[in-house]
Amino acid sequence: MTAFIQSLRQAFDQYLADQQLVHAPKELYEPIEYVMNLGGKRIRPILTLLSCSLFEVDFRKALPAAFAVEVFHNFSLVHDDIMDESPLRRGQPAVHMRYNVNTGILSGDLMLIIAYQYINNTAEKSIIPNLLHVFTQVATKVCQGQQYDMNFEALEAVSVEEYLKMIELKTAVLLAGALEMGAITAGAGEVDRRHLSEFGRLTGIAFQLQDDYLDVFGDPETIGKRAGNDIVRNKKTLLYLKALERAEPAQKQQLAAWYADQPADPTAKIEAVTELMKRLDVPEFVTQLRDTYQANAYEHLDLVNAPPERKEPLKGLAESLLKRAF
Amino acid sequence: MTAFIQSLRQAFDQYLADQQLVHAPKELYEPIEYVMNLGGKRIRPILTLLSCSLFEVDFRKALPAAFAVEVFHNFSLVHDDIMDESPLRRGQPAVHMRYNVNTGILSGDLMLIIAYQYINNTAEKSIIPNLLHVFTQVATKVCQGQQYDMNFEALEAVSVEEYLKMIELKTAVLLAGALEMGAITAGAGEVDRRHLSEFGRLTGIAFQLQDDYLDVFGDPETIGKRAGNDIVRNKKTLLYLKALERAEPAQKQQLAAWYADQPADPTAKIEAVTELMKRLDVPEFVTQLRDTYQANAYEHLDLVNAPPERKEPLKGLAESLLKRAF
Repeated sequence: MTAFIQSLRQAFDQYLADQQLVHAPKELYEPIEYVMNLGGKRIRPILTLLSCSLFEVDFRKALPAAFAVEVFHNFSLVHDDIMDESPLRRGQPAVHMRYNVNTGILSGDLMLIIAYQYINNTAEKSIIPNLLHVFTQVATKVCQGQQYDMNFEALEAVSVEEYLKMIELKTAVLLAGALEMGAITAGAGEVDRRHLSEFGRLTGIAFQLQDDYLDVFGDPETIGKRAGNDIVRNKKTLLYLKALERAEPAQKQQLAAWYADQPADPTAKIEAVTELMKRLDVPEFVTQLRDTYQANAYEHLDLVNAPPERKEPLKGLAESLLKRAF
Repeated sequence: MTAFIQSLRQAFDQYLADQQLVHAPKELYEPIEYVMNLGGKRIRPILTLLSCSLFEVDFRKALPAAFAVEVFHNFSLVHDDIMDESPLRRGQPAVHMRYNVNTGILSGDLMLIIAYQYINNTAEKSIIPNLLHVFTQVATKVCQGQQYDMNFEALEAVSVEEYLKMIELKTAVLLAGALEMGAITAGAGEVDRRHLSEFGRLTGIAFQLQDDYLDVFGDPETIGKRAGNDIVRNKKTLLYLKALERAEPAQKQQLAAWYADQPADPTAKIEAVTELMKRLDVPEFVTQLRDTYQANAYEHLDLVNAPPERKEPLKGLAESLLKRAF
């Protein structure tokens, strides 16, 4: 992390610490404080601040919007964890486990409301309708992405295109929106806003593809967990979908059989599925697709009308995200 | 219903019908269309439109804000029904029963987002931060009210003051906000906005007290259900709380015993609890309190700087709400 990004991170952490998040009744507010302080890399608010400072405008102006983005992100985690029945979040009990499901629903609702409240806290009132428009579009798409994700879980297979659309909605558009909101706060024009948004969207997709790739083919030391976790959980990632698409009938049966099973010792399963993916050149497909998305992302960043040296931190952040070095 | 209120209702219904509510994926949007078309009296959006027209401004300007209020109200019903495990809504399956709990959570989230989107659809962009501020305050309080309501369910008893605060937050502030948003749209000043908001808040509390009263002491033909429903369900209404507060130790024990039981034939229970409430002058207490709130509400309406004849529909609406004639 560069010193500049470090300073943005510190400014954001300080802003968060300065907010009076807990009011009465405490049953409603404590879960919000809990989840907001579980940690996380604060990538999205940092993107908002970086995007604002790209146009030589004081990034502090974008702190309310950056906070809105981070609260929204955490809201979506709270509700997704309920829907996906995920017991853990960042290694700690998820809100609905630490408290209960009703608390998870209601505190999550309030977080969404708080996100909108912070957008309205932006000092320059004339840009609020613009911020609101972008934020609402993004929030809508995140809900659509979560619904597609739930739909896909119930399906045998989906196409690569459908999968890419789902991760775009569920993950990438929020990065795009975080950047666009920073640009709006800086008073950037429509074209620059569009390029930054595209930079975020394409980087987001590249990041998710990298995530799928590293889960199977990453160095366990770098990714901090055993390889093949998604295979163990029968998760339909792009690797699985592409393998299924390329497989001969016999291989297809083999793959389907492994994914219908959850053996106590998953070693053989991980090995067999990984081998099959390699034989079908799936790793090459995914890394090439990832690189194409990332190259397109950088092209959009290049086209933004801002000092090149100010683009370096954004480019550096995107690179370290892909390397899991952030 | 007066012809004028009828015309507002028709304008709102037409606006609702004109909205393209369903997009892809349909699993996410169909529940929204379903709940928005379950009916309901549209009291809140009518209040917004009435409040706007009070200041001799075309009520159509307030249609987006009115729609936001109604979508928000329905969002809160969808999520409350999940939390309260209520299977029915307006005599039809609740969203989480008609579809499933995850759909109820996610479609509800999207409804909250859609409500904000419609606020942002207001033509006069300069008032959007004001609308957003009022709406967000109201939405926050409605969440607080629902949390207090859930907290109270787990308690033996709460004070009359705590109960009044809860119904104010859960029900009354949305009526206040609906009126204030109409006034903002009309360009009304701070003082008039405050008086209208108070009129809505106090009417909302009076309405809820009347609701509690009629459930036990209302004419079954007027209220459309058997008297004593709240007693059967051991619901801690104001009548129950006041009875508990006034009861002698022996009566207190009697009341607690009835409320610890759910007999198959509730006739004797309804009769005994109703008798006890009467003996403790609870009906008089509740009707007097209701009348005090309503009288205060009208005082605030009187103080609004607007043509008296334009206040008549608002007063008439409040009266027919209390009489269950709307």
